[in-house]
Amino acid sequence: MEYKKLFSETATSIKASAIRELLKVTARPEIISFAGGLPDPNLFPSEQVAAIMKEVLEKSPKEALQYGTTEGQKCLKDALIELLRDTEDVTAKPEEILIVSASQQGLDMCARIFLNRGDAIITASPTYLGGLQAFAASGADVYGADSDEHGLTVEGVEKCLKELKAAGKPCKFIYVVPDFQNPTGTTIPQERRVKILQLAEKYDTLILEDSPYRQVRFEGTAPDTFLKLDQGRGRVVTLFTFSKVFVPGFRLGYIVAPAEVIQRCVILKQAMDLCTSPILQLATAAYLKGGHLMSHVKEVVDAYHKKRDFMLQMLDKYMPDGVKWTRPEGGLFLWVTLPPHIDTQKMLDAALEQNVAYVAGVDFYPPHNARRNDFRINFSYSSFEQMEEGVKRLAATIKKSL
Amino acid sequence: MEYKKLFSETATSIKASAIRELLKVTARPEIISFAGGLPDPNLFPSEQVAAIMKEVLEKSPKEALQYGTTEGQKCLKDALIELLRDTEDVTAKPEEILIVSASQQGLDMCARIFLNRGDAIITASPTYLGGLQAFAASGADVYGADSDEHGLTVEGVEKCLKELKAAGKPCKFIYVVPDFQNPTGTTIPQERRVKILQLAEKYDTLILEDSPYRQVRFEGTAPDTFLKLDQGRGRVVTLFTFSKVFVPGFRLGYIVAPAEVIQRCVILKQAMDLCTSPILQLATAAYLKGGHLMSHVKEVVDAYHKKRDFMLQMLDKYMPDGVKWTRPEGGLFLWVTLPPHIDTQKMLDAALEQNVAYVAGVDFYPPHNARRNDFRINFSYSSFEQMEEGVKRLAATIKKSL
Repeated sequence: MEYKKLFSETATSIKASAIRELLKVTARPEIISFAGGLPDPNLFPSEQVAAIMKEVLEKSPKEALQYGTTEGQKCLKDALIELLRDTEDVTAKPEEILIVSASQQGLDMCARIFLNRGDAIITASPTYLGGLQAFAASGADVYGADSDEHGLTVEGVEKCLKELKAAGKPCKFIYVVPDFQNPTGTTIPQERRVKILQLAEKYDTLILEDSPYRQVRFEGTAPDTFLKLDQGRGRVVTLFTFSKVFVPGFRLGYIVAPAEVIQRCVILKQAMDLCTSPILQLATAAYLKGGHLMSHVKEVVDAYHKKRDFMLQMLDKYMPDGVKWTRPEGGLFLWVTLPPHIDTQKMLDAALEQNVAYVAGVDFYPPHNARRNDFRINFSYSSFEQMEEGVKRLAATIKKSL
Repeated sequence: MEYKKLFSETATSIKASAIRELLKVTARPEIISFAGGLPDPNLFPSEQVAAIMKEVLEKSPKEALQYGTTEGQKCLKDALIELLRDTEDVTAKPEEILIVSASQQGLDMCARIFLNRGDAIITASPTYLGGLQAFAASGADVYGADSDEHGLTVEGVEKCLKELKAAGKPCKFIYVVPDFQNPTGTTIPQERRVKILQLAEKYDTLILEDSPYRQVRFEGTAPDTFLKLDQGRGRVVTLFTFSKVFVPGFRLGYIVAPAEVIQRCVILKQAMDLCTSPILQLATAAYLKGGHLMSHVKEVVDAYHKKRDFMLQMLDKYMPDGVKWTRPEGGLFLWVTLPPHIDTQKMLDAALEQNVAYVAGVDFYPPHNARRNDFRINFSYSSFEQMEEGVKRLAATIKKSL
């Protein structure tokens, strides 16, 4: 039968993630893939997870295996309130926190509670692909603001806000990935954060802060979160996740936002999936209460720090002149820029022929804003050997295109 | 700050679930609650779950704790294909199955891929509240079709389809909970299913079959699923879940649908939450492969069968004349109808004063279709003692209202 006429605008307008489609190709064992955004599975604390699962199922089987509250299990929220206080100097109340099935659900949820089809938002250009997907599913009109080696620029944001104001089109929120942004690895400095927040106030809009990598900092001093800078004035909605510092397989994250925003999210989550898995919430709460998180984060940071250093060395060693890349202070990604005449999406076939993969930059740009000469490299997943060999192959591919 | 102007139509139009709000009140220990839809936690196979978790984390820690594919883990899909063949005589291909975070996510997903704001669908009246919530979040215009003691009537469905056709408004799908429906406990007989499916074909629409309770059958013969009756013609999308026959705390379910529909769901799921927790998928696959499910289902069926029998006895024994109720052949719920002049929502305060709770029928009706003199009773959660005492209290409350 003919389904097309039955599908919604949402179904016909959203596109498959280039990355998740590409991952199917790169699953071939001969390919060295810098394309995914996967944490290094050798770092997963699987024995600790097993011990904690045993404990949770012995102590609280009925709570762990039953339906949970939509808001999230109390023990996890309590642990998160402590974590936010200790690591971010942020005071959050239980009604300002919602447990979600990782940040991606938070993005989808925020898109749905704030956006009608055609509503405008501002993002960095380029920005996180999964954010663009969630915003597209709600029919967002995405305005890409300029960014440089320090991420989103104040001028870029203000230009977009002015244009939108002149067009009589309110900006629903400004989406930022302030720390070690996916895809570029850039971090927005403190004073830019202050100014962007002031712009949000001036133009009466919100900041949607997506912070999956924040704890993965190798060096330098962390600027404050937008959440902290807001000082409870209610202009910031922040998404955190355990995917990068604990395990992605738990699909656990949390939203910190004004109570009124959380309330709407809770009602929507009732319709979306009733609740996030209690057993995984209890296990994560036990992990946090056991004091395991911060020592594990240190391990992850040390490992990715070495990998980033090695990746930078390899790029220095093998890349031809005319190729530039970012030097992220943390996170999982860096961003490579080629001379303007090279289209990295077209070059991808040649790279795959050389058995090496990346994600073409074009996939990270909001519509109509794309540059075509950059690509993203992940440095958390591959081994040192794979990194050296992969960069060699990439360099050879690029040399042919120069 | 003023958030109202920033919220979307979705955020302002959906309502909190009456049940989930009520559950907050009924958490008080002195209240006997027939309001929730919770499985009996004494039946959870927590020791088996602990053993399986241990096994999964020993054998496949890297797969269990890493990101998964959006489509679902292969081992679970393989086990589901077998399960569908063995228990439902249905042949499904991997590309016709999507693992979701329980049925509620399947409902939300189907609402989003099929519905634009204002699009029409048909449901039974009354029907599952969480379905109505998910459809409302997508702005559905819900047409409630008549149902009787055997569920949705053929005439009721055809009347709605004719009206919609006359109004030039296509029906996107017909939503059915064919087995032991929530809230009424009714089951649609085989020949009605055949005729409703024929109507779907005649009016060129889909059946959205939601089947969370199907395996919880106490007596009688199961009619075929709509999925089986469709014989691969592609008119049926079916949602199954493990919440009622294994554990709800895993939040695991699956959609079986034509490949073209699954494809759209997969792309949307990328934006919704990337994937459902791999560790819970691997554990469920191991549970299925170990052959544990069917013996556990038998245990659940035996336990709820006894509870249903006891609940029926208690209703017989204590309820005053003029009160009627359904006699479900399975599931978790039955439906009580009072004389027409009694408003069960108004009576709820009096019931809560007597420390007993139910869900007023009005919450299960599509807009504009509500009757006000019935309510839903859950019989899976309470103990026998609570059932007797609770029904006594309920009967006393009703007598005062007669």
